[in-house]
Amino acid sequence: MEIMQVMGRLVCTQRVEGLGHMHLRILCNNKGKRLVAVDPVGAREGNWVFTATGTAARWGCPDPNVQTDLTIGGIIDHWNPDD
Amino acid sequence: MEIMQVMGRLVCTQRVEGLGHMHLRILCNNKGKRLVAVDPVGAREGNWVFTATGTAARWGCPDPNVQTDLTIGGIIDHWNPDD
Amino acid sequence: MEIMQVMGRLVCTQRVEGLGHMHLRILCNNKGKRLVAVDPVGAREGNWVFTATGTAARWGCPDPNVQTDLTIGGIIDHWNPDD
Amino acid sequence: MEIMQVMGRLVCTQRVEGLGHMHLRILCNNKGKRLVAVDPVGAREGNWVFTATGTAARWGCPDPNVQTDLTIGGIIDHWNPDD
Amino acid sequence: MEIMQVMGRLVCTQRVEGLGHMHLRILCNNKGKRLVAVDPVGAREGNWVFTATGTAARWGCPDPNVQTDLTIGGIIDHWNPDD
Repeated sequence: MEIMQVMGRLVCTQRVEGLGHMHLRILCNNKGKRLVAVDPVGAREGNWVFTATGTAARWGCPDPNVQTDLTIGGIIDHWNPDD
Repeated sequence: MEIMQVMGRLVCTQRVEGLGHMHLRILCNNKGKRLVAVDPVGAREGNWVFTATGTAARWGCPDPNVQTDLTIGGIIDHWNPDD
Repeated sequence: MEIMQVMGRLVCTQRVEGLGHMHLRILCNNKGKRLVAVDPVGAREGNWVFTATGTAARWGCPDPNVQTDLTIGGIIDHWNPDD
Repeated sequence: MEIMQVMGRLVCTQRVEGLGHMHLRILCNNKGKRLVAVDPVGAREGNWVFTATGTAARWGCPDPNVQTDLTIGGIIDHWNPDD
Repeated sequence: MEIMQVMGRLVCTQRVEGLGHMHLRILCNNKGKRLVAVDPVGAREGNWVFTATGTAARWGCPDPNVQTDLTIGGIIDHWNPDD
C-alpha cells in the first residue's frame, strides 16, 4: 500500500454506473502526482492515508463490485513525510 | 484512478475480438505519454477524465469480458492541471 | 493499453507449458525499453500496436489460460510517434 | 517480488474492516520510498524482506480475503544492498 | 513480459507457506534493479529470461496457488542487451 495525502473531493456528474455512490477523493502521492481514490473510511483534507490498488481496492469497499483500482485503506494516526 | 485528457480517437481495423465494438480513445497522462482506453461514458476531445486499470477496467464496461486494461470511469466537471 | 512498435520475434526453446504455441514478439515502448508480448493478431516488424496487461492480456488470447501478462490487442492503422 | 527493508510499524486506528487484525509494516524500497505492507512472517525493524503484490499479496495471508496489495513473503537470510 | 538476467539464488529460511518449495532466483532488470522470481524452468546464473507478473505469474507454476507475482516464463536462446 502507498502513503498519500488527501487534497479534496472530486466532482464527476457523468461517470460509470460501476462506481455507485462512493465518494471520490483527490490524493497526492510522494512525487506530487494527483490521483483519484474511493474513500470508504471518511478521510478529510490534509489526512495522511494509505491506499490499496488492484483487486484489493475493490475488497476494501462495502460492495466489492465497485469499479475502483485505488481505495483508501486507513487513516494514519501520525505521519511525518520528511522523516 | 489516474487523471488524463482525451486527445482523440484511435482507429484499428485489425484488432482482437475481445474488444467488441467499444470505442477507443487516445489519452494523455500527466507526463505527456499517450495511452489507449475504452470509453463507455462518451468523452470528447479535450475532456479531463479519470481512468481505471486492471480488473476494474473491465467492470467499468457494460460487458465485463471486454479485453481492456484501461477504461474511462468518468468526466471531471472542472479540472485545472496546474493547480 | 499502451502503444508500442514491433521489433521482431523472440525464440525461446525452453519455456513454461502455460504459453502453449503462441507466437512471442519483441516490442519497444515509448522509452525504448524492449518487452515480450503474445501476438494473436499477426503483427509484423515495424507495426505500431496497442497492448493489454494483466488479466486482459489473457482474455485477448483464444485460450484465456495462456500465461501472458502482455498481449497485442490490435494493429493501429496510422500512427506518428512524434505527433 | 521486490526486495525491501523494514523500517517500523504503522499505527492506523481508523481503517477498513478488510484488513482484519493483520500487522502493518512500513517498508523502504530501493529508491527510498516508504510503503505499507501486511506482515504474516513476523519481520523486525532492519530486516531485509521480499514482498508480493496483487492477488499474490492476498494469497500470502492466512485469510486470502485480506484487503492488501503488498505482503511480506519472506525474510532474506543475508542481503547486501550494495552488492 | 519483461526481459531480465539471472544473478543467482535467494535463500530465505523464514517464508510464507504459500511459496511451497519453489526455487527463488534473483534477477536484474534493464535498470539494474534486483528482483525475486519463482523459477519453474531451471534457469542458471547468467541466463537471459523473460518474466510474467500478476496472475500470469501464478499460472506459470505447476501449482497456480503459489504466492508469486513474478515467474520466469522461458529462457531466451540468444539475447544481446545492447542491440
